[in-house]
Amino acid sequence: MKKKYLLTPGPTPLPPEVCAAQAQPIIHHRTPQFQAILKEVSQGLKYVFQTENDVFILASSGTGAMEAAVANLLSAADTALTVEGGKFGQRWTEICQSYNINTEVLSVEWGRAVEPKKIEERLKANPKIKAVFTTLCETSTGVVNDIEAIGKIVKDTPAVLVVDAISGLGAIDLKTDAWFCDVVVSGSQKGLMLPPGLGFISLSPKAWKLVESSRSPRYYFDLRKAKKAQDKTDTPFTPAINLIIALNESLKMIKEDGLANVFLRHKKMADATREAVKAIGLELFAPTAPSDVVTAIKVPKDIDGEKLVKTMRDTYGVTIAGGQAELKGKIFRIAHMGYIEEFDIILCISCLEKVLFQMGYKFQLGIGVRAAEEVFLR
Amino acid sequence: MKKKYLLTPGPTPLPPEVCAAQAQPIIHHRTPQFQAILKEVSQGLKYVFQTENDVFILASSGTGAMEAAVANLLSAADTALTVEGGKFGQRWTEICQSYNINTEVLSVEWGRAVEPKKIEERLKANPKIKAVFTTLCETSTGVVNDIEAIGKIVKDTPAVLVVDAISGLGAIDLKTDAWFCDVVVSGSQKGLMLPPGLGFISLSPKAWKLVESSRSPRYYFDLRKAKKAQDKTDTPFTPAINLIIALNESLKMIKEDGLANVFLRHKKMADATREAVKAIGLELFAPTAPSDVVTAIKVPKDIDGEKLVKTMRDTYGVTIAGGQAELKGKIFRIAHMGYIEEFDIILCISCLEKVLFQMGYKFQLGIGVRAAEEVFLR
Repeated sequence: MKKKYLLTPGPTPLPPEVCAAQAQPIIHHRTPQFQAILKEVSQGLKYVFQTENDVFILASSGTGAMEAAVANLLSAADTALTVEGGKFGQRWTEICQSYNINTEVLSVEWGRAVEPKKIEERLKANPKIKAVFTTLCETSTGVVNDIEAIGKIVKDTPAVLVVDAISGLGAIDLKTDAWFCDVVVSGSQKGLMLPPGLGFISLSPKAWKLVESSRSPRYYFDLRKAKKAQDKTDTPFTPAINLIIALNESLKMIKEDGLANVFLRHKKMADATREAVKAIGLELFAPTAPSDVVTAIKVPKDIDGEKLVKTMRDTYGVTIAGGQAELKGKIFRIAHMGYIEEFDIILCISCLEKVLFQMGYKFQLGIGVRAAEEVFLR
Repeated sequence: MKKKYLLTPGPTPLPPEVCAAQAQPIIHHRTPQFQAILKEVSQGLKYVFQTENDVFILASSGTGAMEAAVANLLSAADTALTVEGGKFGQRWTEICQSYNINTEVLSVEWGRAVEPKKIEERLKANPKIKAVFTTLCETSTGVVNDIEAIGKIVKDTPAVLVVDAISGLGAIDLKTDAWFCDVVVSGSQKGLMLPPGLGFISLSPKAWKLVESSRSPRYYFDLRKAKKAQDKTDTPFTPAINLIIALNESLKMIKEDGLANVFLRHKKMADATREAVKAIGLELFAPTAPSDVVTAIKVPKDIDGEKLVKTMRDTYGVTIAGGQAELKGKIFRIAHMGYIEEFDIILCISCLEKVLFQMGYKFQLGIGVRAAEEVFLR
């Protein structure tokens, strides 16, 4: 017997209610019974997205929803600006380039947030830019970007603002409408506390104009089809029925809690995690703009970062994430997103202390847990 | 309380073992634990596809896998032949046209199978055809096409043969390698007894050559990425973890039964269904090439076909399918695919008899059930 704990930035743990909901005997999707669920889910998504726009559900990972954004907004030879401050910012560039979009890249040092005024400068310098692709929380570095400030800049230009909120939606604040986010994409396996397999995308009227003129090839991700179907409370293709039934459950849980409380809980957990690792003597990778959904921590000198993550997982059952791409072995990441509560943080910090201690790292045992407890007692 | 029975051609009912498997607490996908599952699943898929080629798993509906075939094989202005004998044949045409493929359509009367020699004629007449898009079982009409005969024709041409086996794979015979099927696509919610949300695609070496030269824009469905990841027992994007864990379970069930037994069971159920409805005095919609996974039946004169389906579902809990597109109200369809056994057919025929009787249709009550029993007693 080994009890398992999951503190990774996607998938995140599933509430038992969600597990139970998705395990129900399947129903057909073209029935009044499923239509009623689709209606509820549609309202719930608008609440979480903080938007009056339709939110479309795709049977895909989050990346599918990202591609839907690019393919529906832009045509070959159009110009786009992508903000790259990590692996997921790079993904925007890669997708745009796959579609032969003329892609301007705004590179940001990994571990830093983008300075909104840099986006303003690029938009002024090149009025041809039709879309700005950004990331709410860059999971690979633990950074949160200031989407509100970026929205204020982009709204006064002809460009649309596209936000990858796969990591963060339903966990930290993102006011789609109030912050002028034209397109927001997300996925199921993060703040929404579901298994992976659903992508989401919302579009403003400004974005719809681009959808109607895009000439990029698309079928499965064609949002015109999605809209036509949604207007009849239907989906263009067989939807991921069980995941949508589970989504209805998790949306109810979020609504019951209230977004404000959800955001506050995430903030507390992030604060506690940051204070704990600092007390242990570790250094945050993104100290200037740390996100409240995942904390990236530098691997200390003389410690094998990959072994640290592996030991926590394979010996003690506590799964956190290592670094990705160029950060492999250099950082590790503790996620505090979705169905996570304060004692999950406590057990994770305790396990981190145990393994660091065993690996010969010098610190006062228990000091991290104590620092986290202090935050939670405030 | 109303007990529910599902006899639709997708989704099909879920075995309780599959429901339980997918409801397990989630695990992270980049772990040895999940890699072991991916390896098993990969072997199981090869068994069901009857192929030595890799089978790739996509987080999408079956249509996503169809689009993956088109986008990876062909570029704008390439020529393709699509075989259209129903709604799903038409889908090939629609996807090809979305990608600006020069699409030749071979129209087949709905309710009939394509004559393989017609494909031969078209290939001879136009040597530019790079791919032939066909359908194993055309769910909208209940027809099964002779893929074996088509394979023999296409293999000697430069064209690749693409088979939509979404409906049928794992339920009726499809020998991917022995029948020279270059590309086979499928989905989870049919013969594989899973919820919708997974697409599958296998490719022959002949097909891979086209993949490497295709210039169609693609990212999420880019099979070069899928192959690169699969070679490391990984997936390019977050996979639909729970569905893949459930897939492992359903593949084990199929393997335990053995494909030959599975096919025999489907044949028996189809025979029984056909004999039953004929005994009731109803007419098959596709008498010359009826598939063993779904039986399409003409709505008799003076009976409201949509009301028939609705009453069976809403009053008695037995869900079958109506007609789609131009067949709406003209046919109804009983699926006998996946996790279905003989007594499911008996109860469905009994419910059909009950509702037809109540609607004033003249026949000898019980005669359909008796005819089915006779088939099962053989």
